[in-house]
Amino acid sequence: MPPIITLLTDFGTRDNYVGEVKAVLASHAHPALLIDITHDVPPGDVRAAQYIFSRVWHRFPQGSVHLVVVDPGVGTARRALAAEAGGQFFVAPDNGLLSPLPADARFVELPVRDGVAPTFHARDLFAPAAGQLANGTALTHLGHVISDPHLAPLPAAKWDGAVWVGEVIYVDRFGTLVTNIPGADVEPGVRVKVGGTDVGTLQRTFGDVPRGQLVAFVGSGAAVEIAVRDGSAARLLGVGVGAEVRA
Amino acid sequence: MPPIITLLTDFGTRDNYVGEVKAVLASHAHPALLIDITHDVPPGDVRAAQYIFSRVWHRFPQGSVHLVVVDPGVGTARRALAAEAGGQFFVAPDNGLLSPLPADARFVELPVRDGVAPTFHARDLFAPAAGQLANGTALTHLGHVISDPHLAPLPAAKWDGAVWVGEVIYVDRFGTLVTNIPGADVEPGVRVKVGGTDVGTLQRTFGDVPRGQLVAFVGSGAAVEIAVRDGSAARLLGVGVGAEVRA
Amino acid sequence: MPPIITLLTDFGTRDNYVGEVKAVLASHAHPALLIDITHDVPPGDVRAAQYIFSRVWHRFPQGSVHLVVVDPGVGTARRALAAEAGGQFFVAPDNGLLSPLPADARFVELPVRDGVAPTFHARDLFAPAAGQLANGTALTHLGHVISDPHLAPLPAAKWDGAVWVGEVIYVDRFGTLVTNIPGADVEPGVRVKVGGTDVGTLQRTFGDVPRGQLVAFVGSGAAVEIAVRDGSAARLLGVGVGAEVRA
Repeated sequence: MPPIITLLTDFGTRDNYVGEVKAVLASHAHPALLIDITHDVPPGDVRAAQYIFSRVWHRFPQGSVHLVVVDPGVGTARRALAAEAGGQFFVAPDNGLLSPLPADARFVELPVRDGVAPTFHARDLFAPAAGQLANGTALTHLGHVISDPHLAPLPAAKWDGAVWVGEVIYVDRFGTLVTNIPGADVEPGVRVKVGGTDVGTLQRTFGDVPRGQLVAFVGSGAAVEIAVRDGSAARLLGVGVGAEVRA
Repeated sequence: MPPIITLLTDFGTRDNYVGEVKAVLASHAHPALLIDITHDVPPGDVRAAQYIFSRVWHRFPQGSVHLVVVDPGVGTARRALAAEAGGQFFVAPDNGLLSPLPADARFVELPVRDGVAPTFHARDLFAPAAGQLANGTALTHLGHVISDPHLAPLPAAKWDGAVWVGEVIYVDRFGTLVTNIPGADVEPGVRVKVGGTDVGTLQRTFGDVPRGQLVAFVGSGAAVEIAVRDGSAARLLGVGVGAEVRA
Repeated sequence: MPPIITLLTDFGTRDNYVGEVKAVLASHAHPALLIDITHDVPPGDVRAAQYIFSRVWHRFPQGSVHLVVVDPGVGTARRALAAEAGGQFFVAPDNGLLSPLPADARFVELPVRDGVAPTFHARDLFAPAAGQLANGTALTHLGHVISDPHLAPLPAAKWDGAVWVGEVIYVDRFGTLVTNIPGADVEPGVRVKVGGTDVGTLQRTFGDVPRGQLVAFVGSGAAVEIAVRDGSAARLLGVGVGAEVRA
C-alpha cells in the first residue's frame, strides 16, 4: 500500500517551493501519494495553520505522514521536529504547530545536517524526514527523543457561571467566524454575542436564514460559528481572530 | 488498479475544508488517486461548476469517481445524489450540477444519516459515498433509485433562420467569453457579434491576430469563443455570462 | 511502480483547463501519479516558468515525466517538443522553456495531428505524449529527432574584474528578489547592491535581521537573494525582474 504524505504550508502555489518539496518527497518515497491540504496559509500565521491542522490530521488513515511547515523562524535556533501519534507521523518546526496532537504523542528533534539551506528546511530537512517516515523508518531513528516540544494550544473558552466566554479562533475565506465555544455545551435559548453584537440563538445551519442575514450555528468542527448567509460575517461585523464571543 | 477520485468544489484552497474531504476519501478508499479539478469555482456558482464539470468528466477513464460540490443549499431540503453514467460515478447535491450527464445516467438519493454536519455534507455525506463507490460498492447500495433528478442544463443556442443566437455561458480567468454556439454549425463568412459589437469572422486561433485585438474562434470545447489576444474580452467589451451572441 | 507526471502551467486553477489535461493524462497513463508543480505562472511568462522548471525538475526520480506548458504561441508555427535528459522526460512548446536541460538532452518534434484544438495543445498534443512517455513509449517513437531546439537560457551574471554584475531573474510571491549571482562566488565582505541601493553584506538567512529590514543572503537555489524579513523587497525597492545587482 503506497503511503500518504500530506502537505500543509504557507508557501503559496505560484513559485518553485512546493514543487521542490514534492520532488524531494517523491525521490525519497515514490510511489507515495502526495496530498495537498493547503499552501495558502497566510504567510507566517502559525495559529491559522495549527487550526487547519487540528481539523484535518486525525481523519487520515493510520500510517499517513503529515508535513506541516509554516516557519517564520526558519534558519534560527528553533528546533525541527518529527512526531508520532495515533499511528500517524508528523514533521514540523517546533513553533507550536503540532500542539493539537494528543498528550501521548512522541517527539524527536531532527538534527540539521550540513548542506541544509537555512531558508528552506522544508525541502532539505522536513521533506527527507517525511519521506523516511513514509518508507517505514522508525521515528527514533530520525533524531533523539525530546519531551518538551513547544506547545501553544489555541485558547479555550471559559464558563463564567452564566455563559461561555470564548473568542474567534479562525476566519475562513467566506468570512465565517469560527469560535472556540463547544456547540454542544451552549444552553438552549442562549443568545450568541460577538464583539457586542447580538447574533441571536443557535440555528441549525446558514440555510435556515435569509440571504445577507447573520446567523450563529454549530459548525462542522463542533464549535459555535457566526456567518452571514451568502456574505461575510467578518466584514459585516468588522471583527477577526481574537474577538470576544459569548454564548 | 487504484481508483481515481476527482474533486470539483467552491471551497477555495486556504481553509481546512478540502483537507477534511480528502482525509475522508483517503480513509475510505486508500490508495485512491485524489485529483483536484478545481476548488476555485466562485462561491455558490452552480452554473460555472456545471460548465467545468461538463468539460472534464467524460475524459476520465472508466471507474473514475467524481465528487462535485457547489452547494449553496447545503443542510436544506435539497436531496443528495450519487449517479452512474458511462462506467463512471458521481456524487453531488441535487441542484443541477449533474445536468451534463447523458440521458441514460442512473441516480440514487443518498440518505442523510444522524451525525452529518448540516453545513458540511461534502465531508460527511458525499465523501463517504465517493469512497464507497471507489471501493466498488454498487450504486444502488448507497440509496434508493430516483428518476427525477433536478436537471437545469445550460442554455442552448437557437437558429433564427439567418444566424445562430446564443449567449455567453462561461468566462474564464483570461476573460475569454465561451458561448453556447456550436462552432461547426456557423456558416463560413458569418460575422460574430457579442453584445452589439462586431468581432469579425471566425479565425483559427487567437495567435492569428495582433496583441490586444478581439478575435472569435472555435474554442477547445467546440463552441464559439471571443477573446482578446493577451488581454480580456470580458473587460474590453464589458460583458459576462448571459450576454447575447450572434454568429 | 506507477510513473510520476508533473504539471507546470499558466492555466490558473479556476477553470476547466487543468482538469481536462489531468483527465487525458489519467486516460492514457492510469495509475500515474499526477503532481501539481504550479498552475499560477503569470499568463504567458515563459521566463518565470523556465526559472521554476530549472529549480524543480532535477530533484524528481528517474522516469518522471514533466508537462511544462506556458505557451503564448499556441496554434502558431512554433514546434511542439518532447525530450529526455538524465532519465527523465519532458513535453513542452519549443519556446525556450526547456533551456535548463543539460547539453546532452535529446529532443523530438511532436507532429500536430488532425483534430488537435489550435488553442489547447496541452490537452490534445502534450498530455497524450506525456501519457505515452509515462507508459514507456520510446522518445523517438513520438516524433522525429531535432537538434535545434529553441534555447533561451536565463541571463548569467558577469565578473567585471571587481564584483559580479548580475540581475534579478525571478521575484517570488513574498517579494524576494532572486538574482543570477552564484552565492559561493561572492567575495567575503562584499556589499550587495540592487538598483543602486546598498543592501549590506551577505547574511546567513532573513531570520538574522530584524523585521522589516532588507537583507541579502545565499538563497535555497544557491544564488544571491534580496529579501525584507516579513516584508517585500520588490515593493520596498520598487524593482523587479531585470534590475541590476552587484555583489
